[in-house]
Amino acid sequence: MIVVQYNGTNYSGWQVQEGKKTIAGCLQDAIKAVTCEDVLVVGSGRTDAGVSAFAQVANFVMEKDIDCSKLISAINAHLPKEIAVLSAEVVSDDFSARFSAKSKTYAYYFYPSVVRKPLYDNFALQTKLLNISDMNEACKYLLGEHDFKSFVARNSGKTNFVRIIYDAKIENVADDLYRLVICGNGFLYNMVRIIMGTLIMIGEGKRNPIQMKEIIDSKDRTKAGKTVAPIGLTMLKVEYKEKD
Amino acid sequence: MIVVQYNGTNYSGWQVQEGKKTIAGCLQDAIKAVTCEDVLVVGSGRTDAGVSAFAQVANFVMEKDIDCSKLISAINAHLPKEIAVLSAEVVSDDFSARFSAKSKTYAYYFYPSVVRKPLYDNFALQTKLLNISDMNEACKYLLGEHDFKSFVARNSGKTNFVRIIYDAKIENVADDLYRLVICGNGFLYNMVRIIMGTLIMIGEGKRNPIQMKEIIDSKDRTKAGKTVAPIGLTMLKVEYKEKD
Repeated sequence: MIVVQYNGTNYSGWQVQEGKKTIAGCLQDAIKAVTCEDVLVVGSGRTDAGVSAFAQVANFVMEKDIDCSKLISAINAHLPKEIAVLSAEVVSDDFSARFSAKSKTYAYYFYPSVVRKPLYDNFALQTKLLNISDMNEACKYLLGEHDFKSFVARNSGKTNFVRIIYDAKIENVADDLYRLVICGNGFLYNMVRIIMGTLIMIGEGKRNPIQMKEIIDSKDRTKAGKTVAPIGLTMLKVEYKEKD
Repeated sequence: MIVVQYNGTNYSGWQVQEGKKTIAGCLQDAIKAVTCEDVLVVGSGRTDAGVSAFAQVANFVMEKDIDCSKLISAINAHLPKEIAVLSAEVVSDDFSARFSAKSKTYAYYFYPSVVRKPLYDNFALQTKLLNISDMNEACKYLLGEHDFKSFVARNSGKTNFVRIIYDAKIENVADDLYRLVICGNGFLYNMVRIIMGTLIMIGEGKRNPIQMKEIIDSKDRTKAGKTVAPIGLTMLKVEYKEKD
């Protein structure tokens, strides 16, 4: 099992795609360069094109017996600068980075400003001025088990939209830089970006905070906000222990 | 007077240099595109090649009478994406961004880690594991008025090395990301980067915190640490009110 950090801004997402630069593709190439083995790298989830990860978890099976700390350096030596393996450990055969995951935490960075800020531009979305306290009030309606059909891309192919949100809040990172931090047992395709788009709609005063509940209950994608750009999204962590 | 934010990583510093991409050069070009006037943009100080600024202050004289908020948008439309004017105001003729400045605050970002971190790489220096509390103890010896000859690049051309440091401390920004925040009435050429190099030497246990005092007193550049890379350095703010 490996923990991987990446700046996904200029990548076509996690999942291997023929002819595209992907995170999992680069990892598989690097592992092959080190071990001469063709491995399948399975992530806890597939981050979209342009999305970064502070600590994505992935697993793969290899035959060779290489000490973990040597393996980290060797793989990192073959990775582009946007990707790095932070840690590695041997896990039991029944561990799956994807199916054993109990919770995931994402952050969406944004800065309300009338002017563009070059130092935030690479990882945060510029927005209009927002009422952050209204947005935090709206976050409370997300907590718990809900059917999140209003917050899924229409082409997701999923039929079960029930997910549990353990935590959701807007944090002030520094000056006028903010982030939504959201933790759940799983997320639907584009779910965090649509939730963020809905919170921005509320922050702009186009909806009241309590309307977040109505939007959830409607199970109607057209009631929620737009899917905001991937630039602000970072997968923060994946946990494999049951949440209390 | 304008406040400017820039990501200086791929620029040859603030100061205009023939044939080089500089921050002041880009500003002068953008202002010319808007006003058709050749102006001289004077910054509060000249940041080095590779150094960024959260809020650099600069001034220039123009003949045309353009509303400040329109001027901001117009200049920004002509600037590369790494540079943006955050605000602008008309100031009296005796205001000088450089000579009226009473204090400047810099941050130097670093992360102690055995592995490279792609999400910090663009603005922070990777270091060995460090004793942060020793470094903070050493910071205390920097406070007050001292002759900082030990912390200046040998080719600075200056003869007066006395500066006042109002504040200096290491802050934990997030996880294993730290920054030195240092505020003074002025800084010598490379001074912040040499102070940071010295603090790293102390954090690595190669010197004791109290030796910071000896290093200052020696007025000998060879006693201080090395000049660390510009990547971690950001000018945070410039103040024009007298410090208490």
